[in-house]
Amino acid sequence: MSQSAYKEFLAPNADYAANFGPKSSLALPPAKKLAIITCMDARINVYAELGIKEGDAHIIRNAGGSAKDALRSVIISQRLLGTREIAVFHHTGCGMLTFTSPQLKKIVKDSDPSNPAAQAVDHIDFLEFSDLELSVKEDVSFLKESALVLPGTVITGWVYDVETGKIKQIV
Amino acid sequence: MSQSAYKEFLAPNADYAANFGPKSSLALPPAKKLAIITCMDARINVYAELGIKEGDAHIIRNAGGSAKDALRSVIISQRLLGTREIAVFHHTGCGMLTFTSPQLKKIVKDSDPSNPAAQAVDHIDFLEFSDLELSVKEDVSFLKESALVLPGTVITGWVYDVETGKIKQIV
Repeated sequence: MSQSAYKEFLAPNADYAANFGPKSSLALPPAKKLAIITCMDARINVYAELGIKEGDAHIIRNAGGSAKDALRSVIISQRLLGTREIAVFHHTGCGMLTFTSPQLKKIVKDSDPSNPAAQAVDHIDFLEFSDLELSVKEDVSFLKESALVLPGTVITGWVYDVETGKIKQIV
Repeated sequence: MSQSAYKEFLAPNADYAANFGPKSSLALPPAKKLAIITCMDARINVYAELGIKEGDAHIIRNAGGSAKDALRSVIISQRLLGTREIAVFHHTGCGMLTFTSPQLKKIVKDSDPSNPAAQAVDHIDFLEFSDLELSVKEDVSFLKESALVLPGTVITGWVYDVETGKIKQIV
């Protein structure tokens, strides 16, 4: 069966737009001057989990919630849109704890062995990690030490527990 | 005034966790086998806008909703966590329409002229765009043509209007 989840976007979107109200005039720069970096994981509802609402914060999401992967976005967020605080969230049960880059590169290349273009996967650092709290500390350190992140940025690091919905501050 | 938005995370999170219910046993692979790529923009509430709920879809967000920037995450999403559909959303009023990479690189370097490490910004492609609908088409083409994206993936492209809350399918 081919995928077609996109066909289910329109009905809820019509309801959302019908009750859009004052959100129509929200400003581009985030009201809380905050950028959140977290994982793409399907179980993470950033708004509900942190009491964030439309207009409050940039939400950057990628596999693992990697700060390194998010750097391009962080620079744009800070230099062009005025954010001055970053909160990094990783989470329990993360897929990034379950594989290594060499394993994943082999999966990709083995799936299409006759295609030289598939070798491009060798240039990708998949940024997996094996220790959850350490990965948060390392990402906060990466941001604090980066010459491309503004001095004085308030940077915190957290773990979200997918089995309880609770957050815990690590840094 | 220094930033401290993070101090406001704990109270709403306690409420969220207190009513967590059956979300505690959601599976790691997204139920809809869907990955959504969209912008970090503060006005975008992906769940509400598309009728998505916890467990349904990977949500990848970066400055602009760039598919190229999202490739690492897409590979992990497809090869390790079973997604077979990608929906790319860009939006009206996007910050990516307002600058060029040379301008932003100059801002970063001028802010810290004595620091050689700030020159590292020259290695970053900020992936800005000047035509919104074209940027969606180009990102969908990038994914369709990539040897690292699974053949047969259903890929759609959309524009979200931040002034009305409405989505429009482009591809």
